[in-house]
Amino acid sequence: MAYIDLGVDDKEFPGITGPMKYRPETAQHLNGLAETLLRAPNSLPPGERELIAAYVSGLNECTFCCSSHSAFAAVQLAAGMSLVDQVRADLDTAPVSEKLRALLRIAGAVQRTGRAVTTELIAAARTENATDLEIHDTVLIAAAFCMFNRYVDGLGTFAPQDQHEYLPMADRIVREGYGV
Amino acid sequence: MAYIDLGVDDKEFPGITGPMKYRPETAQHLNGLAETLLRAPNSLPPGERELIAAYVSGLNECTFCCSSHSAFAAVQLAAGMSLVDQVRADLDTAPVSEKLRALLRIAGAVQRTGRAVTTELIAAARTENATDLEIHDTVLIAAAFCMFNRYVDGLGTFAPQDQHEYLPMADRIVREGYGV
Repeated sequence: MAYIDLGVDDKEFPGITGPMKYRPETAQHLNGLAETLLRAPNSLPPGERELIAAYVSGLNECTFCCSSHSAFAAVQLAAGMSLVDQVRADLDTAPVSEKLRALLRIAGAVQRTGRAVTTELIAAARTENATDLEIHDTVLIAAAFCMFNRYVDGLGTFAPQDQHEYLPMADRIVREGYGV
Repeated sequence: MAYIDLGVDDKEFPGITGPMKYRPETAQHLNGLAETLLRAPNSLPPGERELIAAYVSGLNECTFCCSSHSAFAAVQLAAGMSLVDQVRADLDTAPVSEKLRALLRIAGAVQRTGRAVTTELIAAARTENATDLEIHDTVLIAAAFCMFNRYVDGLGTFAPQDQHEYLPMADRIVREGYGV
């Protein structure tokens, strides 16, 4: 049970979906931001952007966001959930491109605090041919999930524990997007 | 100088205004969220909502967001900047209503992690007659500033050090809003 009465069955509307039903005035902007950052045309594929979201949500220990965005990443990456698990377990050795590894390191710094991002982290991403826009979007995706994670957990929302329960949600997001 | 080329003079577009000029596709949703949370009709006055934003930004040590939202709060609160300073210095003794103090305690927990919000913090706010919507909006304002602060500092944007430089911005926000 969430800390406030969201007016919905929390099994039917788990995680962020309950607060979004409760407050459509803010939900429209949150969904618009997610759609633009994670699904709009971009040189970073949607699966890689969802991986950044899942990685940050894991660092924030947000069960709902980490489970759901891990599923969204897995269904859009050729290497699937095994790659998501490897990145979350050990970024240094995970089989991702050096560009994505450098961007994930920036995302990990943002998760701690924006002030943890250094010129060295930015230079390392540039060396791997990350563009300014890719660096910008990585910082904003990581920052946005520091919001989404706190929103979901700060209201004490329900999160399914079984990773398989997130698969229908993943199919829907890939098919229909974030509903804006 | 920001870490990426934002295409603007950073003295003219300090803090978040540079990245917003650079990426209007995301700026529209960020501005819409800020306008809805901080300025739309609400039982919490705009000055109190800006105070929550300033308080969280201070905890995150984000100079631009803390200075700007402190100014936005000060010009909309009868007790002005002196009240903002007292809340930031010692929430326990600051001369705010017990309801606002309880909401600021929830915001402070969200700043650390969403998982730091407890049923006790929520019950304390309810005892002071905080509504579910006020609790919801406090959690989302605090969470949103954990994003804005990381966005501003994660891109290494410029922040004026003199608090007086934020006053023209405060006049503009009160008069025109967050530009959506």
